[in-house]
Amino acid sequence: MRLVSALNYASSFQSKFVSELKEFLGFPSVSSQPERVGDLRKCAGWLARHLQGIGLERVSIIPTLGNPIVYGSWLRATGRPTLIIYGHYDVIPGEPVRAWKTPPFTPTVKNGNVHARGAADDKGQLFCHIKAIESWLQTGRSLPVNVKCIFEGEEEIGSPHLTSFITRNRRALRADAAVISDTRMLAPDRPAISYAQRGGLRAEVEITGPRHELHSGNFGGAVLNPVQALCEIVAGLHDAHGRVTIPGFYDDVRRWSDKERAFMARTGPTDQDILQDAQVEQGWGESGFSLYERTTIRPALTLNGMAGGHYAHGSKSIIAASAIAKFGFRLVPDQDPQKIARGFRDHITRITPAEVRSSVRTYAPIEPALVDRNHPALKAAAFAYKKGFGASPVFIRSGGSIPVVNTFQQILGCPAVLMGFGLPDDQIHGPNEKFHLPNFYKAIATSIWYLAASAKLRSAQSIESEREREMEGRTQ
Amino acid sequence: MRLVSALNYASSFQSKFVSELKEFLGFPSVSSQPERVGDLRKCAGWLARHLQGIGLERVSIIPTLGNPIVYGSWLRATGRPTLIIYGHYDVIPGEPVRAWKTPPFTPTVKNGNVHARGAADDKGQLFCHIKAIESWLQTGRSLPVNVKCIFEGEEEIGSPHLTSFITRNRRALRADAAVISDTRMLAPDRPAISYAQRGGLRAEVEITGPRHELHSGNFGGAVLNPVQALCEIVAGLHDAHGRVTIPGFYDDVRRWSDKERAFMARTGPTDQDILQDAQVEQGWGESGFSLYERTTIRPALTLNGMAGGHYAHGSKSIIAASAIAKFGFRLVPDQDPQKIARGFRDHITRITPAEVRSSVRTYAPIEPALVDRNHPALKAAAFAYKKGFGASPVFIRSGGSIPVVNTFQQILGCPAVLMGFGLPDDQIHGPNEKFHLPNFYKAIATSIWYLAASAKLRSAQSIESEREREMEGRTQ
Repeated sequence: MRLVSALNYASSFQSKFVSELKEFLGFPSVSSQPERVGDLRKCAGWLARHLQGIGLERVSIIPTLGNPIVYGSWLRATGRPTLIIYGHYDVIPGEPVRAWKTPPFTPTVKNGNVHARGAADDKGQLFCHIKAIESWLQTGRSLPVNVKCIFEGEEEIGSPHLTSFITRNRRALRADAAVISDTRMLAPDRPAISYAQRGGLRAEVEITGPRHELHSGNFGGAVLNPVQALCEIVAGLHDAHGRVTIPGFYDDVRRWSDKERAFMARTGPTDQDILQDAQVEQGWGESGFSLYERTTIRPALTLNGMAGGHYAHGSKSIIAASAIAKFGFRLVPDQDPQKIARGFRDHITRITPAEVRSSVRTYAPIEPALVDRNHPALKAAAFAYKKGFGASPVFIRSGGSIPVVNTFQQILGCPAVLMGFGLPDDQIHGPNEKFHLPNFYKAIATSIWYLAASAKLRSAQSIESEREREMEGRTQ
Repeated sequence: MRLVSALNYASSFQSKFVSELKEFLGFPSVSSQPERVGDLRKCAGWLARHLQGIGLERVSIIPTLGNPIVYGSWLRATGRPTLIIYGHYDVIPGEPVRAWKTPPFTPTVKNGNVHARGAADDKGQLFCHIKAIESWLQTGRSLPVNVKCIFEGEEEIGSPHLTSFITRNRRALRADAAVISDTRMLAPDRPAISYAQRGGLRAEVEITGPRHELHSGNFGGAVLNPVQALCEIVAGLHDAHGRVTIPGFYDDVRRWSDKERAFMARTGPTDQDILQDAQVEQGWGESGFSLYERTTIRPALTLNGMAGGHYAHGSKSIIAASAIAKFGFRLVPDQDPQKIARGFRDHITRITPAEVRSSVRTYAPIEPALVDRNHPALKAAAFAYKKGFGASPVFIRSGGSIPVVNTFQQILGCPAVLMGFGLPDDQIHGPNEKFHLPNFYKAIATSIWYLAASAKLRSAQSIESEREREMEGRTQ
């Protein structure tokens, strides 16, 4: 009865939910841009008021040394399991804005999608759980389980203050499982649960040469150009087989059994799927591995961006004074981000040409994470997907990095259930990011089911038959 | 008598000259930025009014398909030689403005220098000749020679419309020599006449990969990054010996005799001089040649700038969709800019990795140029320097490219006399560009002497004794 009411509520209020999501997406809560700190606070305030409005309790905006954490709970299901629901309300920059068809912070619904920065990563996805909680609380004044919602504002900059928050509150945050929706499905009818994420590490290299820009006529051919030197350094970071050349980089990379690789080949995307998602014609990377393997069980080093000298409109005959490159590592078990950071710094120092100087900064280390595919919490999630999307999820590895997964496992001892609702073409981190509205609605239903399934995990079947009885009762 | 009057006039009005130069420098006449087209017109207008004011005739602002040419002449010295005085009133961008101690277009006098973009390159230097002409005309109502002033507004973008102007007006522009002050001396007491300039060619390479930016977690390790691909291309353009790897690049480079190289070693700057000018500790480049040779008789390929992906503040986990690099070639006799352009385009196409696409644009070809060191016009210039600066000039080669030198030689058949008044530390094309005011004053005196010396080249000595007689007469 209560399950059906919640599902019906969710169906009835779809357009209200979309309007609310658009409000949420309108905040330019870009955590990597210091000038946006006020927007992050405003967004946190809006979110807290929203949680209060749907009936969550103990709602608070918890200050950190960075952006605040928005917290809310409902703990009246005595004797029942407790779920943490985690999400992040911060986003990456909207730049380059000119590449967007509609402005990144003017959420726009078009062709069944809502377009905005953060639509899928992660405001839209976390909002599915909020709307599922609302559907339960507004129809039956209670939830089938206890929930503790943690929405942070620093995921996109490596969650620098979340671990200490969780550590400080490890008793109060005790839970049976943590659910995180910040990943994606394989296709609209192919849900997926991610059981592995790569770790990460960020790095910046700055090369400095002459004190000032020099005239390239007077000095061209006699002074090493820092931009060219940086190009040579970058070019040397991969060998002809697509392997990273930093000494020791692969030393701790776990070798997987043929059985696991066969499981991956059976369940994961094909090379063709990945190329299609990326909209590129040819793959690249470490030889001897499929593209799925290259993006999940193999580490990667990506040059996120680079600049030096005069690259804007017009021309300028100069030798630049400096150049900068920004890198992102993706790491896998059992690589240690700190050890990789040391190796990278040493390597850059070693390969910097004598004519220029280099400075290296490494930051935002994230441990790689793995969740047991057979944990009951993941089985409950699989059941909920089947009800919400009409299809059983596949268990996949994810190439991205969600810092908190490891934190939940290590500090709270609870598994992280990665229920992705995004689609491969959502263009997260790209221009025109979107969230597919049919996925939004099905994800809310899935979350409603998941809250129920988590309550009585061992009798998932019985929940289903309960609902069937209710439905029969209704239509009679 | 008239020479002394002119020199005295110049001495008396130094502070007026500096104020006028500051006005001239205040125009942000940046030819490579389309939004500055109005500023170029205003600057041309100011310059034309100024020429009229000092007594030049037939002053006009001649439209071109780009920025106008400012022309003025004085042709009443019947039977006397005719000099072209060439300069450019356009400048390169002031960016990065934050690197300047005073704004690039707010001319500021400090420690005996005037600081502004264009102070030395070339507004300050061309202004020396204007003030010399003024000194003659305002004191004696005539010049010792005929002059035709051509001040263009597109030198910094390769003078795209000057050649057709000169070709169209080849009869009207007939002259015995063209004087250009857009080069530099070796030190405040070491004047120099440049008898060789390198040619040039500009190029842009754009690499495109994925249609949109991709999330580096999802695709890092499986999709080739266009920024990385561009780094690899750039890194491959030089070998370990500092030589450009484009096939055939050195085929047409002229080999100089041991005698010429010995002359260069004797007269030109040492490696140490060049390193000091550049304010760098170590040289770089093609092995087997001195730094002076590398920047004059050897060609060079400089990466002027490059950008791709996210390089601004904050971090962004992406694989970029594209990257761009801007290059400048410096070419030497007998390289053909068009042939080099073809070779570069073919080479880039050949070395572009299969996973990305490249597009190459080459533009602004400039022929290398050489002037006979023994031409009488250069000897007159040497004499004038000795009078103005108290030292005989050395004959040096210049690493930069002045498009018009070749044009004057080829089309008008007259030698270009490159009388540089800049100093090695003027930071032309860099931040805090300056012009040394003592050089400004001495250069005006030098130009006053040069106008006289050009009139009666064969009797330079007699001019000197005439002045001595005048001086004696005055002090008696």
